[in-house]
Amino acid sequence: MSEAFLFSLLDLTGTFVFALSGAIAARQRNLDLFGIAAVAFIVACGGGIVRDLCIGAIPPTGLSDWRYMGVSILAVLTALGAYPLVQRLAYPVRFFDGIGMGFFAVAGAHKALHYGHGAEPAILLGVVTAVGGGVMRDVLLNRIPLILQREIYASAALLGASVEVLGERLGWSVQWLPWAGILLSSGIRQLSLRYHWQLPTFAGRRRGQGPSG
Amino acid sequence: MSEAFLFSLLDLTGTFVFALSGAIAARQRNLDLFGIAAVAFIVACGGGIVRDLCIGAIPPTGLSDWRYMGVSILAVLTALGAYPLVQRLAYPVRFFDGIGMGFFAVAGAHKALHYGHGAEPAILLGVVTAVGGGVMRDVLLNRIPLILQREIYASAALLGASVEVLGERLGWSVQWLPWAGILLSSGIRQLSLRYHWQLPTFAGRRRGQGPSG
Amino acid sequence: MSEAFLFSLLDLTGTFVFALSGAIAARQRNLDLFGIAAVAFIVACGGGIVRDLCIGAIPPTGLSDWRYMGVSILAVLTALGAYPLVQRLAYPVRFFDGIGMGFFAVAGAHKALHYGHGAEPAILLGVVTAVGGGVMRDVLLNRIPLILQREIYASAALLGASVEVLGERLGWSVQWLPWAGILLSSGIRQLSLRYHWQLPTFAGRRRGQGPSG
Repeated sequence: MSEAFLFSLLDLTGTFVFALSGAIAARQRNLDLFGIAAVAFIVACGGGIVRDLCIGAIPPTGLSDWRYMGVSILAVLTALGAYPLVQRLAYPVRFFDGIGMGFFAVAGAHKALHYGHGAEPAILLGVVTAVGGGVMRDVLLNRIPLILQREIYASAALLGASVEVLGERLGWSVQWLPWAGILLSSGIRQLSLRYHWQLPTFAGRRRGQGPSG
Repeated sequence: MSEAFLFSLLDLTGTFVFALSGAIAARQRNLDLFGIAAVAFIVACGGGIVRDLCIGAIPPTGLSDWRYMGVSILAVLTALGAYPLVQRLAYPVRFFDGIGMGFFAVAGAHKALHYGHGAEPAILLGVVTAVGGGVMRDVLLNRIPLILQREIYASAALLGASVEVLGERLGWSVQWLPWAGILLSSGIRQLSLRYHWQLPTFAGRRRGQGPSG
Repeated sequence: MSEAFLFSLLDLTGTFVFALSGAIAARQRNLDLFGIAAVAFIVACGGGIVRDLCIGAIPPTGLSDWRYMGVSILAVLTALGAYPLVQRLAYPVRFFDGIGMGFFAVAGAHKALHYGHGAEPAILLGVVTAVGGGVMRDVLLNRIPLILQREIYASAALLGASVEVLGERLGWSVQWLPWAGILLSSGIRQLSLRYHWQLPTFAGRRRGQGPSG
């Protein structure tokens, strides 16, 4: 499996699960068919487009490569056609969100390095790729972004992107390095959801605010 | 009428009606003079600026060409000075929004082609140009964007941008092609508002959510 | 003091106070440690990143220069560690916001000129640098941006950026010109807060809407 193919695969897999998470959230908010497709595409490609603008990849891949649009449409059809199946996962939006986050953190960091940028922007842009789409989804659906409230999210993305960047700098095998980063970040995310791991908050009023939405 | 002049005219007309729609919405939300001007400019130029960043047109025309700012200020003065006239149109924000959408979808798609990009990004960036400003307006005014709820909007922009891109590829006359795209997309938008055309929704709870804001 | 050093200093000072304002707002909204850090960084660097994308400074300094991240983290630690001190300032968020605005308006306008852009985009991008981060903060925290309601804000940034651009064009001394712009814009902002200066609003319903949040 060539390196380019591997990262294309990671990116398209992340695109699919993010689009799925976006389509489900939009469906639950009673948006219409086009609104669902638009939110799915924005969740899937929004973070990557911002990353591409920041690294000078013009035009952004999400716009110029038809596969991203194709995969997004496939995810919308899945969310609409196989909804009962999708719904069985207790928190489907969060679940797919957490998977896509890991894929995007690693693929985003790799792409920034590939364009010749340093370790710090690569890690930050991995995080932007991973959380950008989800933040846009929540902003569009008019709620405080999950990632600012659900604690182990951006931090998990940061971890995955850092593993990828560090590993590439140390010359580790590209065959398993991305999977390690993905497993680490997505795994921590899912575990934190399951066991309610939290980072501390510091507000004066101690009553916890419930999850938005 | 030269091609460059024609598309400049389309772009500035779209800018005027979008700025008008933004100024009216901001006025209704009780923003002050500067807030009104800022929202008007963002609605009018926000989508185009995102498009310009994506096609590599640096600096974005909305920032570097003084006519966009001038036209926006003119629209603000119109919205403030001729408000009773503007108000007679039953749904003024939506009306002007629908007109500007058609102009921007066509002009945005053309500009992306003109910068050497392919058909798919040109169509998508036509849609971004057309809906970007309106989405920003709704995000800033803290409501779920109209385009995700009012059904025949982004789809109408998609149609207008597709007509423009397809027509240019087929070498159709630049004299009437843009007008066909504008008429088609803006016309469908206005008809859908009048006759309440809708795309299907898929939410479990069937009670329709009223329009936000 | 060299010119480059001076503007670096202005930029980093603005970064610190904006990050502080972001951290305080996020803390008050009960976000967790990572949410606070993310909002602080976005408030501090969001406007500058948009400016850098618009002037073609790729990658944006906020991502590639580690000092911006370092200063943001320092501001988060200050907001968490010295909160009682910070809180004594009656309206801490608005206060620091108003200071950072002046620094960023001037530094942003200067950077756009430095990259060879004209006077109009330089002034507009000074305003974008100054207000972009604050707008993003309010959008993320799900409220109508302060700058659209609190009147003398974007207008003060416009004044500061204009003084800087005009002064540079006229060849005035770079040693005191930025300070004049900062003093003017930040001063007007603080005075407008203290004395409740307002620009006119035009809404039909006259009851003032209270401040959001």
